[in-house]
Amino acid sequence: MLTLFTYNWQVREEWFEWAAELSEEELLKDRTGGPGSILFTLYHVADAEYSWIRAVYGLPDKPVSFESVRSLDMVRTLSDKWNREVRNLLESGVPDLEGTVTAEWAPVPYRKGDVLRHIIAHEIHHMGQLSVWAREIGHKPVSANVIGRELPAIPGNRSSSELK
Amino acid sequence: MLTLFTYNWQVREEWFEWAAELSEEELLKDRTGGPGSILFTLYHVADAEYSWIRAVYGLPDKPVSFESVRSLDMVRTLSDKWNREVRNLLESGVPDLEGTVTAEWAPVPYRKGDVLRHIIAHEIHHMGQLSVWAREIGHKPVSANVIGRELPAIPGNRSSSELK
Repeated sequence: MLTLFTYNWQVREEWFEWAAELSEEELLKDRTGGPGSILFTLYHVADAEYSWIRAVYGLPDKPVSFESVRSLDMVRTLSDKWNREVRNLLESGVPDLEGTVTAEWAPVPYRKGDVLRHIIAHEIHHMGQLSVWAREIGHKPVSANVIGRELPAIPGNRSSSELK
Repeated sequence: MLTLFTYNWQVREEWFEWAAELSEEELLKDRTGGPGSILFTLYHVADAEYSWIRAVYGLPDKPVSFESVRSLDMVRTLSDKWNREVRNLLESGVPDLEGTVTAEWAPVPYRKGDVLRHIIAHEIHHMGQLSVWAREIGHKPVSANVIGRELPAIPGNRSSSELK
């Protein structure tokens, strides 16, 4: 399962590269059917992953508002920073998947395994939305294929290797 | 990881329910940014899962053309049939994830683990596309959340339980 995190990070990186070809107006334009603009969507998947992973590891949320990083370079820098922290946490070992996560923004506790699956599916879902918007503005979207990529496994303890 | 299969099946079922509210014209209308129409997308995710899973288990492809099931009821019946076969195969035990799959439609062999991940991400990606089209025609999309669902584990051998 953890390999799907590395898939998402690789795909997100490719969407950042892709987005560098767009004007600021296209990046920030509010669009139908997703969380907002293309840039907000990229911020949103990184933010959700970071917040949920910190919750899984029992760490408090450290929110950064979209308004404070309202450019492609700033969102990408923030995503990279969050990504390093997420990777370090996952590499430190995967928590008991049957344990529960209580997050301040969640109405009820969830099982940690379900939260990890949620993070993965959440990003793939929103990247699917980006792919429609890409075609709508005449651009070729990033490939969503898992096969044909070199996806490094996340090194870690026994539990994480079981989760590969 | 196998729990993400049960997630996809549940979400697909909800999209079939959702699609029952649409006219045939809306279902079959060609749309921008995905594989075609809403109905074709539902057929396509079921078809891809079925074909790839059979390949993972060393079974030949049994293609059914979209043209032969061009109604919501027929696609849903076919998806249910394929789904039972996929479930039975997964429940029979997960193959060695490091083994390779050679599929007649694929240019090179892929690792079985990557094919399973590919099937999962493929469906989530296309359901993300459906969610944009849903809003574009004024309908509320199916929720993509993993958390908050009851997702049954797929019973099976030691390998599949490690993959949960």
